[in-house]
Amino acid sequence: MTNKFTEIQKFLEANDSDMTFLTNPTTINYLTGFESDPHERIMGLMIFTDRDPILFTPALEVEPASNTVDFDVYGYTDNENPWEVIKTLVGNLDVKKIAVEYEDINLKKSQGLQSVFGNEFVNISPLIQRLRIIKSEDEIEKMMVAGDYADKAFEIGFKYAAENPGATEMDVIAKIEYEMKRLGISKMSFDTMVLTGDNAANPHGMPGKNVIERNRFLLFDLGVMKNGYASDATRTISIGKPREFDTEIYNIVLEAQLAAMDFAKPGVTANEIDKVARDVITKAGYGEYFTHRTGHGIGMDCHEFPSLGGVDDVVMEKGMCFSIEPGIYIPGKVGVRIEDCMHMTDTGGIPFTKTSKELLIFE
Amino acid sequence: MTNKFTEIQKFLEANDSDMTFLTNPTTINYLTGFESDPHERIMGLMIFTDRDPILFTPALEVEPASNTVDFDVYGYTDNENPWEVIKTLVGNLDVKKIAVEYEDINLKKSQGLQSVFGNEFVNISPLIQRLRIIKSEDEIEKMMVAGDYADKAFEIGFKYAAENPGATEMDVIAKIEYEMKRLGISKMSFDTMVLTGDNAANPHGMPGKNVIERNRFLLFDLGVMKNGYASDATRTISIGKPREFDTEIYNIVLEAQLAAMDFAKPGVTANEIDKVARDVITKAGYGEYFTHRTGHGIGMDCHEFPSLGGVDDVVMEKGMCFSIEPGIYIPGKVGVRIEDCMHMTDTGGIPFTKTSKELLIFE
Repeated sequence: MTNKFTEIQKFLEANDSDMTFLTNPTTINYLTGFESDPHERIMGLMIFTDRDPILFTPALEVEPASNTVDFDVYGYTDNENPWEVIKTLVGNLDVKKIAVEYEDINLKKSQGLQSVFGNEFVNISPLIQRLRIIKSEDEIEKMMVAGDYADKAFEIGFKYAAENPGATEMDVIAKIEYEMKRLGISKMSFDTMVLTGDNAANPHGMPGKNVIERNRFLLFDLGVMKNGYASDATRTISIGKPREFDTEIYNIVLEAQLAAMDFAKPGVTANEIDKVARDVITKAGYGEYFTHRTGHGIGMDCHEFPSLGGVDDVVMEKGMCFSIEPGIYIPGKVGVRIEDCMHMTDTGGIPFTKTSKELLIFE
Repeated sequence: MTNKFTEIQKFLEANDSDMTFLTNPTTINYLTGFESDPHERIMGLMIFTDRDPILFTPALEVEPASNTVDFDVYGYTDNENPWEVIKTLVGNLDVKKIAVEYEDINLKKSQGLQSVFGNEFVNISPLIQRLRIIKSEDEIEKMMVAGDYADKAFEIGFKYAAENPGATEMDVIAKIEYEMKRLGISKMSFDTMVLTGDNAANPHGMPGKNVIERNRFLLFDLGVMKNGYASDATRTISIGKPREFDTEIYNIVLEAQLAAMDFAKPGVTANEIDKVARDVITKAGYGEYFTHRTGHGIGMDCHEFPSLGGVDDVVMEKGMCFSIEPGIYIPGKVGVRIEDCMHMTDTGGIPFTKTSKELLIFE
């Protein structure tokens, strides 16, 4: 039993609850080390206050799960109704209130659970978020490795774009992801974005067959999954000599990003960090073109709790990992975003990515 | 208003319901043509019996959505509570019962809806599945194009594996996805699988740095997303001269796959198709090594309703699109799967992929 399980048991007792039925594959991976995505099938982690946990999975997953976790794993085949199987397993327990992740479990699964156990649920998402929001040293080490691969990906992408006139956005993406796979990265943390000129300036720009333009900016947003953890970073470079106005915008975004990174310390709030970045851009006269929040938490998911700029605010603490990624997108003119993810220490944030943020110009 | 909207309005009336709040991005794309994944943010399509629909999205999506749909789009910013915004928009409507997709909407969103409108929900997932299960000619044409790219991907992968001794599984995957991106495919329909020898024989095999073995089988499972539709196909080839036993297993799987494809006609059921494939393999003595269902529906999602082999059975109809993919995996010995997706016509199924199923041997 790890500390995480103890925390969950405390939650169950405090909430007059008998068991969990955790359905989010990332939560299950986080708590048990067992990585699997059952898609539409049912996978549930049952943690009790007074007995050993049970992992319930599709039948095919029982063997690999049993090799990973140190408690019982039960499965169901495609020919069985999973809720009937669960009833056979634990239907005799007197369970009234079940702790489920409101942000994950859908109404169909919650109805299935109700058919086994009765009606009452309690939302354990806030506790899971709270556990996941503070990363251990081991987690931070994994995120540093994922960050190193992002730096490597930038290097590959910059070089390819600079040396291959006529290449398209998709060509550059293909090259980056090809080399990442050759280095053993089986999954990017999201679809790599490479956007040239006006496409980078479009807040809805999507990569395509646009040829990389000369004397315009080229925006890279990318990250990898490595050892279960994500990286996520953005750089904007110039292919050929940059236009004067573009450089001006670049410097405003860079100033905003550096100011927010510098401001981020334990005790300040996520929304205060957002405000620092936003104020720089607003004061320069481009506030309306900074159309998104300043950042997001990151860990086993590329986007996780908290949000830097949003309805719910959070006080920053040591061990939190998050992006700082201000941007300015002026349609038809120029688009710039600069992003690093960082982990919070006692004295401030340390970025996972180290690629230069001086405006890189590839002649 | 398309026919699809009319069907949904009929459902609302028949179920004494006032409006939908559809949250699945693929459902919204299917019904409106607007493609977007809002991740943890709220997107909802409200269809009413007595007024024009409303699409509710994150603020950044309002512009592209408005350019796509011919009804009103409203947005909310990260600084607003989306449910408060919805209350302002339509909170004055006397809505009692809301049709939601039980297979998609999570408890958090359903609580948000309850805070605006009250408590009662009705499950519209079965109707949406029913609409999506029968593909139009236009949809089938798109799926044929996606199938052509899968054939192209096999060709690239076979050639690369055959001509590059020492290449790893990940190298072959990198090459396939690189060339697909160069052809304009921005997304595979799932992570490409290339598995060599014992790894293909492992029902849980995942691609990695294993060097492609000579005189062993090499299994490819892949597909692309193109124009919003998925392809999905599997071929098993031999790198070097195959072992006698491996060829025997190959021929059993091929016989099972061809028998099921031949049997699949309007009027038979999904589970009957599964049984035809399974019987061939069971009679040959390898039933225990065919560890998964025979197939799944496919369309805008790579895995969708129905399941060929499962709890719920479905009578096959013209326009349904589904995979037939029996396999035998004997740990430590040999693994074979052969898969085509097909669309049902009045007289039987027509596959989207045409790559040869004769055992291909690359010396």
